[in-house]
Amino acid sequence: MPLSQIPTPACADFLSALTDTLGADAVRSGDAIPTDRHTDWSGTAPLAPLAWLRPDSTAQISAALRICHAHRVPVVPQGGLTGLAGGAVPTPGAVVLSLDRMNAIESLDPVARVVTVQAGATLQAVQEAALAAGCLFGVDLGARGSCQIGGNLATNAGGNGVVQFGMMREQTLGLEVVLADGSVLDMLRPMVKNNTGYDLKHWFIGSEGTLGVITRAQLRLQPAQPARATALAAVPDVASALALLGQLQARCPGGVAAFELMWDDFVQHALAWTGQPRPFDQDHPLLVLTDLSGADESALAQALEAVLGSAMEDGRVLDAVLAQSQTQAAGLWRLREITAEFPSRLAPINFDISLPQAAIGDFADRCIDALSSRFPGHRSLRFGHLGDGNLHLSTDARSLGNLSFAEAEHAVEAIVYGLVAEAGGSVSAEHGIGLHKKPYLGASRSPTELATMRAIKHALDPLNQLNPGKVFDMA
Amino acid sequence: MPLSQIPTPACADFLSALTDTLGADAVRSGDAIPTDRHTDWSGTAPLAPLAWLRPDSTAQISAALRICHAHRVPVVPQGGLTGLAGGAVPTPGAVVLSLDRMNAIESLDPVARVVTVQAGATLQAVQEAALAAGCLFGVDLGARGSCQIGGNLATNAGGNGVVQFGMMREQTLGLEVVLADGSVLDMLRPMVKNNTGYDLKHWFIGSEGTLGVITRAQLRLQPAQPARATALAAVPDVASALALLGQLQARCPGGVAAFELMWDDFVQHALAWTGQPRPFDQDHPLLVLTDLSGADESALAQALEAVLGSAMEDGRVLDAVLAQSQTQAAGLWRLREITAEFPSRLAPINFDISLPQAAIGDFADRCIDALSSRFPGHRSLRFGHLGDGNLHLSTDARSLGNLSFAEAEHAVEAIVYGLVAEAGGSVSAEHGIGLHKKPYLGASRSPTELATMRAIKHALDPLNQLNPGKVFDMA
Repeated sequence: MPLSQIPTPACADFLSALTDTLGADAVRSGDAIPTDRHTDWSGTAPLAPLAWLRPDSTAQISAALRICHAHRVPVVPQGGLTGLAGGAVPTPGAVVLSLDRMNAIESLDPVARVVTVQAGATLQAVQEAALAAGCLFGVDLGARGSCQIGGNLATNAGGNGVVQFGMMREQTLGLEVVLADGSVLDMLRPMVKNNTGYDLKHWFIGSEGTLGVITRAQLRLQPAQPARATALAAVPDVASALALLGQLQARCPGGVAAFELMWDDFVQHALAWTGQPRPFDQDHPLLVLTDLSGADESALAQALEAVLGSAMEDGRVLDAVLAQSQTQAAGLWRLREITAEFPSRLAPINFDISLPQAAIGDFADRCIDALSSRFPGHRSLRFGHLGDGNLHLSTDARSLGNLSFAEAEHAVEAIVYGLVAEAGGSVSAEHGIGLHKKPYLGASRSPTELATMRAIKHALDPLNQLNPGKVFDMA
Repeated sequence: MPLSQIPTPACADFLSALTDTLGADAVRSGDAIPTDRHTDWSGTAPLAPLAWLRPDSTAQISAALRICHAHRVPVVPQGGLTGLAGGAVPTPGAVVLSLDRMNAIESLDPVARVVTVQAGATLQAVQEAALAAGCLFGVDLGARGSCQIGGNLATNAGGNGVVQFGMMREQTLGLEVVLADGSVLDMLRPMVKNNTGYDLKHWFIGSEGTLGVITRAQLRLQPAQPARATALAAVPDVASALALLGQLQARCPGGVAAFELMWDDFVQHALAWTGQPRPFDQDHPLLVLTDLSGADESALAQALEAVLGSAMEDGRVLDAVLAQSQTQAAGLWRLREITAEFPSRLAPINFDISLPQAAIGDFADRCIDALSSRFPGHRSLRFGHLGDGNLHLSTDARSLGNLSFAEAEHAVEAIVYGLVAEAGGSVSAEHGIGLHKKPYLGASRSPTELATMRAIKHALDPLNQLNPGKVFDMA
């Protein structure tokens, strides 16, 4: 039964069962629910949930899910609400379950380099705890101050640094998860090697809250990397950029911390918006911005200089500048960071695509060709984390004629996601599917894959109570 | 119906359906099945399968599984038969499905560093293809010439090098899997970032052939690492060894290629068996053998010397020797490699345990105490891949009095696995569960975890046809 149709007495029974178990402070309904719980950073149309639950322990979450299960009320887990795909937006008749009171850093072992955290801890709190212990947490992204570790895990967040340390999945040693019926799966065993049956934790990472509620995690930390070296290089084509990346990784295994590609369409906007002088005497088709990080600054600078020097000799790098100071490095990064200005300077239709590395150059050009053919005069900016195969494309909806934003978005998405499907790429490299990309999931997953996902969902959540309608529909 | 009870006419129908579809060459039964297909390296009691299938394509495997599904005949996938847990041994009435004719290296991209292989390719063939292209495959283990990539994936193999590059899971970018009903799951998209619904490939890695038959894989390659530096260091305790590891990893991120710990009980046997002189003036509680690898030999040697020097100053390292040549390095490794002589010199009861890193030292001592209390005079050797939390313990059954090997094994396993459960460790770090460790799976997994595993198995293989009775029972 849709929740909006739940008879009032049943609903009152349900809420009082929750209040009796969790305490009045942990259960709010009606106007007592702050409106920021009605949607997330995706800008999805707001919807009031049936209740807002704020349990403060795994036991409370287990009890809450048991009650929701008994009353057949769906549950939408909410972290920091920073998702861009609408994965945490209330569905009709659901309660939202916030992890914000479970935000402790429970323990940190700086020798084994493992931190045990509750799911409501912010990414920044984990990063700061790591730094205070002389370590580094391998995931970083712009929403660090608001996003929560549970949400990062549920969406397998990426962000900066994936080329060096991988996604959230690669940081995860152990998880605790509460299932739809309230059962607690304790998988908090922080061993790299543990081949004892199915490695269940991987089923929950990236499942966007549809299979279980992540309550605690044991995360791997990295050694601190105090030294950094930065360069900007002009390259003739994507193949040369990939070759340069390979040479840097061979010379500094594990040391390439960033390898960002900017097409000239992006660079020209960056120069205009920042007012910075052109970095090279002439324009080039592509610029690479790369950071090496590690223990020894002079060794990193030497390695960067040697690899770039040899690449210039063989023509794969056309020109290059090495930052001689942190200020210079920040200046080079300023070009890449104009993406923060997209919302104010463009009406951006943003893409978060990944492709097999060798296909990126062709794909980026075919996107522009296809868009130009449909929308002559479109303004599109291309950039990406080349080391991860992650391409971002932003098209300014205001450059597409008289279409509404929604019409423009639909038209551009149809073109771009069609090309993604042809190239065997992913319509969502790191943001997940949520609500917004559901229509395009089939571009990246086959009917057999989707049927298998549904079979798993049905096995773990037979009543379709956890974040129903997100990622895919069960019908 | 157990296969042994299948009526002869139904069995003949089944075999002729297979022969019609796969060709006579790909279906053998009765005495035409070589006896090496009756068991594996685990030494499990041999059993003749109903038939031996040798399909040569994914389409043939799909067709074969469809026929088996229609006839309700279980299927045991077989790779190189090198498993030590009995995972590939025929179950009563099953056919065995060999991947040995699907052994092609289909393509290799040395720039994106991705190799696409069929599941029957040996690990060594993949390693050699990588080397020929100037790359390195990150997994290595003793059975490399016989074991197959499909088996490595199905068991999430570890081996040497896990501290640097992770297990098979961490090498895997894409998979192709055939499900119990013959459906083909094509997950061959080699992107690091791809958050489009559940990442299904992780469900099959390490599932020991119980959820699907892995047919092809896209695997990540590493840059070649031509340089190496080796040292042997004496340390007072495991905590000091862990601190040393942390310092090496901080100094050489991604560069620690091996970090092997040998307790004195192991070292004394190694010295006696090899006839080598004692490496240091006096005996020490623990020796660490470590390799750094990378691009620049002198940089590695300098790093190793600097870290060991500083560790000696603060007392965490008691003595150390750096190999000055490859011959010297091989001599140091000779000590560690006496494990190859265990079968001829001992009646070894072998353990493949992992533990939270900080617990290893205590655990290793408690094992010895518990064994000594039950079996005074037992001979046990302790060594391990400390960087992975992986502890190996081998107890000589001949040192346990008049028990039969089976009795001795049972008694020692009960003691050791009991301690593993208390310490929150894993009864199988890298060898999997198969048949042999089923009785002890509950030491490392909770009832809720086991119930969840069964729910997933039932969702993907409702007739329990794929490798039934391995890892856990469905009853």
